[in-house]
Amino acid sequence: MSERMAVPLPKAYLLLNHGPTVLVSSAHGDRRNVMAAAWNMALDFDPPKVAVVIDKSTLTRELVEASGEFVLNVPARKIAALTLAVGSESGRGIDKLLKVMQSGIHSDGAGTTAGGVVTAPLIDGCLAWLECRVIPEPHTQKTYDLFLGEVVAAWADPEVFSTGRWHFPDAERRSIHYISGGSFFATGDEFSV
Amino acid sequence: MSERMAVPLPKAYLLLNHGPTVLVSSAHGDRRNVMAAAWNMALDFDPPKVAVVIDKSTLTRELVEASGEFVLNVPARKIAALTLAVGSESGRGIDKLLKVMQSGIHSDGAGTTAGGVVTAPLIDGCLAWLECRVIPEPHTQKTYDLFLGEVVAAWADPEVFSTGRWHFPDAERRSIHYISGGSFFATGDEFSV
Repeated sequence: MSERMAVPLPKAYLLLNHGPTVLVSSAHGDRRNVMAAAWNMALDFDPPKVAVVIDKSTLTRELVEASGEFVLNVPARKIAALTLAVGSESGRGIDKLLKVMQSGIHSDGAGTTAGGVVTAPLIDGCLAWLECRVIPEPHTQKTYDLFLGEVVAAWADPEVFSTGRWHFPDAERRSIHYISGGSFFATGDEFSV
Repeated sequence: MSERMAVPLPKAYLLLNHGPTVLVSSAHGDRRNVMAAAWNMALDFDPPKVAVVIDKSTLTRELVEASGEFVLNVPARKIAALTLAVGSESGRGIDKLLKVMQSGIHSDGAGTTAGGVVTAPLIDGCLAWLECRVIPEPHTQKTYDLFLGEVVAAWADPEVFSTGRWHFPDAERRSIHYISGGSFFATGDEFSV
């Protein structure tokens, strides 16, 4: 289990403001899944909202629509291989989370942690977690595969995000930005203007 | 004027895939404006679509709704000060573009270039440009300040993006990711898994 502290909800947008790739975790009944999503963003401050694209063909779509919930997990570079793996394979017919956890790709205390509010699991080894309830917009979901969510709980690893600021301590504990193929950018240097 | 080459439309999503902060430029009649937007993402591949949050209080909102068009410009670190400036001040009552161009903040061949398809200007000193037509979704626009656009032309500086790949040549010609206050992250190192 990753260390985590609660992030005040009006500050939750800061966890996504710099545009990281996320893992979308979901659960319904005895099924659960996780997928990667570069196409996500903050949508509002307070109450905090987010937007994320979830393709019709995915198991995640089915679980999110059935449960009305999802979690956006902000993965660290140290689990970039996991992020790629869960973005490359469908969860249909397998427990992708279990498979990935058992594969050795996820070497950092492989596992998940129960969220505080929603049923979808929080992925260990991430930097931050946003528990979300779907804001039902059937037309937008159907036409654009676009899901809007209200953030109902937010968490961050206090070694990486605290007092409203990211402060990546090392190369492995940085957020990542998907390019294509097996390539990512790490979040780079902070600078002020 | 920045050097630019056309990007094939099915590859246009790559210009936003890693989550950079963008400048939204707009024009209607004899008015034009530019604002910064961290909350943007790709929405579809082909035809390419994007999503961006444009607050009700902004002049950009008025111009985008009146014209049905906008451009997402991907600024380089070298114009981070411009990005912050146009994100901090309203364009109402002033020609913000002109003011910024004349302020000396935008030192790299200050100016704008006409787009190929839409009326909104392309901001010089950027790395890439996505010309977009609004996909009218009045409910989504009104309720969430969320605008969807179809990308009708896409351009990139060939020294920075070509053959479907980013290859940032130096520290100043990198995309940026807004944090808060006057702080950004530069897009960092590329890595593969």
